[in-house]
Amino acid sequence: MGRWQPDARGRLEQAALELFAERGYEETTVAEIAARAGLTERTFFRHYADKREVLFGGAAMVTELLVGTAAGAARQASPIEAVAGALQAVGAVIEERRELARRRSRVIAANPELQERELNKLASWADALAATLRARGVDDSDARLAAHVGVAVFHVAFARWVARGNRSTLPELIGTSFEELRALV
Amino acid sequence: MGRWQPDARGRLEQAALELFAERGYEETTVAEIAARAGLTERTFFRHYADKREVLFGGAAMVTELLVGTAAGAARQASPIEAVAGALQAVGAVIEERRELARRRSRVIAANPELQERELNKLASWADALAATLRARGVDDSDARLAAHVGVAVFHVAFARWVARGNRSTLPELIGTSFEELRALV
Repeated sequence: MGRWQPDARGRLEQAALELFAERGYEETTVAEIAARAGLTERTFFRHYADKREVLFGGAAMVTELLVGTAAGAARQASPIEAVAGALQAVGAVIEERRELARRRSRVIAANPELQERELNKLASWADALAATLRARGVDDSDARLAAHVGVAVFHVAFARWVARGNRSTLPELIGTSFEELRALV
Repeated sequence: MGRWQPDARGRLEQAALELFAERGYEETTVAEIAARAGLTERTFFRHYADKREVLFGGAAMVTELLVGTAAGAARQASPIEAVAGALQAVGAVIEERRELARRRSRVIAANPELQERELNKLASWADALAATLRARGVDDSDARLAAHVGVAVFHVAFARWVARGNRSTLPELIGTSFEELRALV
């Protein structure tokens, strides 16, 4: 394969997720990922610091999308509406990468260390959302509560989305879960 | 000090938390903890597998209390009420150990690895609560949602409780936070 590949990053991700699924995360090496993608290890390291980064590398982009969407919510939107809208925007991006995202979640579910890292990622989303709400003038208590509860709703919706037999999109399930929350509380 | 101490476990915990606060968690050794408690390392290992266990050793007891309280909630209690009641029962136990618990939370806040472990503990509470609700006949969706949202509310209440200047008890803050959730949603 040629040296200049327009989407080396995407190919490396695809290769990594295939190998993690086939052999297990621990057992897969960077050399194997690069070989599967038809690229060199050097190219791998131009895109990712290590193999864990393949699973968590999109974090900055997602946080930006969350914060940008929540900050741009209509002025009359309630804190929980601003949070729900931001999480649905992230849900839409994940939905576009449906197969990769579902494969990724299975790799994470199989590894306790990656699960802890994933929970930490969700906690950082909640912190970023709470800060955005505060900047919108929401008081600290409500901001934290709306952000953490919203992320918990996302977490449940995501688990439904990856469940065997699910046919709904992630944004649909996020919407349904926020409605169910209203009914529950 | 005599060989038979009625509360060696408690003294070891107290000594460990003091040392973690003074020197940092990473820098503290089991030998130092045992010495500070006036006990031997052998005694330490009779009570705890390692120093991390001092911070997370009560997990089984807490899960039992959560599950027992939620399972024993009045038949007409809603899923969220059963969850709130169980988390308040845990809050009351933590409140009884106010100083130790607050010191523990500062140690955890200073260490990313311990923070991930703490998030994992909260996720396991949510799983245990969801299973208890299902056993009460709540459908899987509502059970997961009530459990995860409830734990998110606890998480926010706990952060308020450890915040400088707070005078409320943890069960009070848990109650207030559930009320605020109702107003928010």
